[in-house]
Amino acid sequence: MKARVHVTLKSGVLDPQGKAIGHALHSLGFAGVRDVRQGKVIELDLEESDPNKARAAIEAMCGKLLANPVIENYTIELA
Amino acid sequence: MKARVHVTLKSGVLDPQGKAIGHALHSLGFAGVRDVRQGKVIELDLEESDPNKARAAIEAMCGKLLANPVIENYTIELA
Repeated sequence: MKARVHVTLKSGVLDPQGKAIGHALHSLGFAGVRDVRQGKVIELDLEESDPNKARAAIEAMCGKLLANPVIENYTIELA
Repeated sequence: MKARVHVTLKSGVLDPQGKAIGHALHSLGFAGVRDVRQGKVIELDLEESDPNKARAAIEAMCGKLLANPVIENYTIELA
């Protein structure tokens, strides 16, 4: 089963990478860009075929490795 | 208008970061992980409110800055 995890910084957390992209877009002439945030997307291919078990396993992976719950949010999409 | 751009490596392109995550997950005891790929997600907040114009602007941003079309694919989601 395939899954996709989005890891994004929480809204109050400064995102220098996003700011850099925003500045670069302004320099390139894209004036209508208000704000940019950058996150990660992790695509997993799991042997598990039960959606509930897969989701539980991915929650555990996020807590242990994929996301830093202090500053990051994550969302799990199963495909 | 808010938009989200996913930038992922094309399927034939080696993804060392994804491989590293996969190895780390195996070391942590998640044996059922077959493959991991890591990509970027870029969240944009644009002044443009017309979806077609916003999409065209984001296509231009992807071509000029956000993605490397030689090795990366991108998908645009408007919210």
